[in-house]
Amino acid sequence: MTIRTAAILGGGVIGGGWLARLIENGIEARVFDPDPEAERKLNAVLENAEHAYGRLTNAPRGPKAAWAMARTVAGAAEGADLIIEAVPERLEIKRQVYAEVEKVNATGVIASSTSGIMPTELQAEMAHPGRLIVAHPFNPVYLLPLVELVAGGQTDPAHIEWAKDFYASLGMHPLHCRVEIEGFLSDRLQEALWREALWLLHDKVATAEELDAAIAYGPGLRWAQMGTMQTFHLAGGEAGMRGMLAMFGPCLKWPWTKLMDVPELTEDFVDMVGGQCEAQSGSLGPRELERIRDDNLVAMLHALKANDWGAGKTLAAYEAGQAIRSVPAEPDFSKPFITATRQVPAGWTDYNGHMNESRYGQMFSDAADGIMRMIGSDEAYVARGMSWFTVEIHIRYLDEGMAGDPLTVTTQVLEGRGKKMHLFHRLTHADGRLLATGEQFLLHVDMNARKTCDPAPEVTAKLGEIAEAQASLPAPEGAGRAVGGR
Amino acid sequence: MTIRTAAILGGGVIGGGWLARLIENGIEARVFDPDPEAERKLNAVLENAEHAYGRLTNAPRGPKAAWAMARTVAGAAEGADLIIEAVPERLEIKRQVYAEVEKVNATGVIASSTSGIMPTELQAEMAHPGRLIVAHPFNPVYLLPLVELVAGGQTDPAHIEWAKDFYASLGMHPLHCRVEIEGFLSDRLQEALWREALWLLHDKVATAEELDAAIAYGPGLRWAQMGTMQTFHLAGGEAGMRGMLAMFGPCLKWPWTKLMDVPELTEDFVDMVGGQCEAQSGSLGPRELERIRDDNLVAMLHALKANDWGAGKTLAAYEAGQAIRSVPAEPDFSKPFITATRQVPAGWTDYNGHMNESRYGQMFSDAADGIMRMIGSDEAYVARGMSWFTVEIHIRYLDEGMAGDPLTVTTQVLEGRGKKMHLFHRLTHADGRLLATGEQFLLHVDMNARKTCDPAPEVTAKLGEIAEAQASLPAPEGAGRAVGGR
Repeated sequence: MTIRTAAILGGGVIGGGWLARLIENGIEARVFDPDPEAERKLNAVLENAEHAYGRLTNAPRGPKAAWAMARTVAGAAEGADLIIEAVPERLEIKRQVYAEVEKVNATGVIASSTSGIMPTELQAEMAHPGRLIVAHPFNPVYLLPLVELVAGGQTDPAHIEWAKDFYASLGMHPLHCRVEIEGFLSDRLQEALWREALWLLHDKVATAEELDAAIAYGPGLRWAQMGTMQTFHLAGGEAGMRGMLAMFGPCLKWPWTKLMDVPELTEDFVDMVGGQCEAQSGSLGPRELERIRDDNLVAMLHALKANDWGAGKTLAAYEAGQAIRSVPAEPDFSKPFITATRQVPAGWTDYNGHMNESRYGQMFSDAADGIMRMIGSDEAYVARGMSWFTVEIHIRYLDEGMAGDPLTVTTQVLEGRGKKMHLFHRLTHADGRLLATGEQFLLHVDMNARKTCDPAPEVTAKLGEIAEAQASLPAPEGAGRAVGGR
Repeated sequence: MTIRTAAILGGGVIGGGWLARLIENGIEARVFDPDPEAERKLNAVLENAEHAYGRLTNAPRGPKAAWAMARTVAGAAEGADLIIEAVPERLEIKRQVYAEVEKVNATGVIASSTSGIMPTELQAEMAHPGRLIVAHPFNPVYLLPLVELVAGGQTDPAHIEWAKDFYASLGMHPLHCRVEIEGFLSDRLQEALWREALWLLHDKVATAEELDAAIAYGPGLRWAQMGTMQTFHLAGGEAGMRGMLAMFGPCLKWPWTKLMDVPELTEDFVDMVGGQCEAQSGSLGPRELERIRDDNLVAMLHALKANDWGAGKTLAAYEAGQAIRSVPAEPDFSKPFITATRQVPAGWTDYNGHMNESRYGQMFSDAADGIMRMIGSDEAYVARGMSWFTVEIHIRYLDEGMAGDPLTVTTQVLEGRGKKMHLFHRLTHADGRLLATGEQFLLHVDMNARKTCDPAPEVTAKLGEIAEAQASLPAPEGAGRAVGGR
């Protein structure tokens, strides 16, 4: 089942995050939300998502799909292949929304974003209950990979299988919660922690800021890569989890908790907790904090991707898929052609906010990868033991790039014959400024024999064809220069 | 109070982590542990820590202090300024250890690593109880910054103030738990989550691997940078934490938990949980998993450091302190001199395991920073609006670097006069291989006026002195070349 058009019912933080994921992946959407402020709020979420996606993927981004506000539930749902429900966590509201959907749409998958209501409850009064699933995401939905998939008693199991593929294609990590329980898995775990935190606040043992430090400087760094079980399996030393249970099992029964009860959410208590959260953020408004959070998430996802682990692996798989989705049209090889585009990611800048000088080299390295793909020296080719190695590069720094800047590399092939590839790259900002040039010389190598060799015939042919098309271009200003030779 | 010699009582995962932090920061240590395997286990932890530290800090590392095993508690504790206790979590064992310490040492600070026993209990039978504090770290102790500081009823408050500075100097983030409760802050929160996880395992709702995915692909990525309170403050959209409490407060009372009870840790249950944890790790042994975890932690700490946030800020502050601690002796300027050293961090490598070509440029960029510091163009100078900008660089790639490789850049100053600095860098592996050369040309700039200008007189003088000392060196092989000009 291919999803062409989706409806999103509810345009808050979650609905907005779904909207960003969908249109980024080429799926059109109509959103219904009775709040007159909904469109403004959605645009704020989309702006954050745009900022994040520019920094997140190394893959070429395909064109974004269109979206529009709908004036009614029916207007959004009619003709939609997928109906994402993200309305408040009240069973009667959700059931009422489904009833309105069913008046105009009898076949689209209905995916509830509920944080914990059982799908069996949700679908109980539906005319076509088999199509209801829970697909529970996590804020910010446009960045966090996790989505919990839960079937109700009447759900068609094929929809869960479909959902695994579909959400993975959006760059997510589907987790099938095989046993239906309230709160599913992740929120059970999160709520346990939150509940305990609320008690510590209530008893004035600590402030919100202190409780956050108790996570973010310690356990949180572990949880971003391994859950509690694997973390404690390692904390048990050579005896692993068995050792941990022997050592700390008894403590679990000590009076370290007030977990079952929940503090009364009196006005005073809510005011105290809300006030502490506001105080912790200091002068940073919600929008600024969201940007900080997103920049941190992007940087950590990159970090995990470089280590080929966990959520970073999810991102790498998504990028591989994106690269296929958005194969560019054959460029016009009669002039310098685009070989790399990206926004400067968070984490590429120096203390002064400028793109670190080594990252100019990274852009040129990515550009060379771009050409390699164009001539058929792709990942499969490299896996066979053949590749191009950079022998030398001369970079001239002409202007500065800052975080978030949209950059493009265009490349002129000066020579492309036999095992030699001689390139001249220009790195430009979307505003037209030339930021740097890179003159790069590569040799084709047999990585097994550890020596240079001629490329495969089809690679030689394609490279030759491009070099031929570029042969009559004027020599670039700055090519052939030595350092200091101006 | 300066710590010269520390005792570590207990040489398990925690004691070993403390040992690594101490000797890395130049503090000698003696370790007592009755386990005949202790020394072997400690060396394994130290090996992991060495691997991690090589990748972690950009700061020059000072010399490591010596350590030795002691044969008795008294032998370790005698004359120690700091006694770190990391023995099993049983009050009677801890009290007995303190009694043995007090026979030979009446003045050293005793810092218990307990995960949750109240210091008032720990110190109750001590002759000099004022010196006991809790300093509760998190595994891996050599990498995670969090340390909870807790005073007991008889603790001298000055020791807590001292401890804040001391643990910060080790690169940690001290969190003073102001109200003494069992489990302190972090473990209360962690245990709540773990307890719920154990129930979900017990009821066969999910496997250890599924529960871990429910954290690591979603909430865990948030917790690595913001705690639960700030995370939910953002999840509440424009209404913040107040909105979250209004929306989800009621759910907290729903039957989403079995938290108060703990499943019986029967042999069967322990076996099931232990078996699942082992299965999740697949073919990865504990040592490999620890390396993966550490590489991930290092990469995420770097990511957060680049964004100047949370635990990354802690690392940056530590590096700044380290740079002061280990000011190198004046190099011999009559030959090429060392300007940068580092091990190749996790995350600097390509899919093929080789150091990405842009990172060679990073090493040369770091080397230029090294020279800038030597000639007085340091951070204070840059803060005044003066700096050196790289105009161009020519890099020749001669051999490959891999993750963990120990690299050194030596630099020859070809010209250093007025606003011009012309450098020739050689990047070598500790095994003697020349991996790359970099010929770099920099100009001195007034960053406010956005144009080139002469440096401050003392900078001009120092750079001139170095250039003069290097003037008679032979021109390096490869200097003055254009790309392809071999």
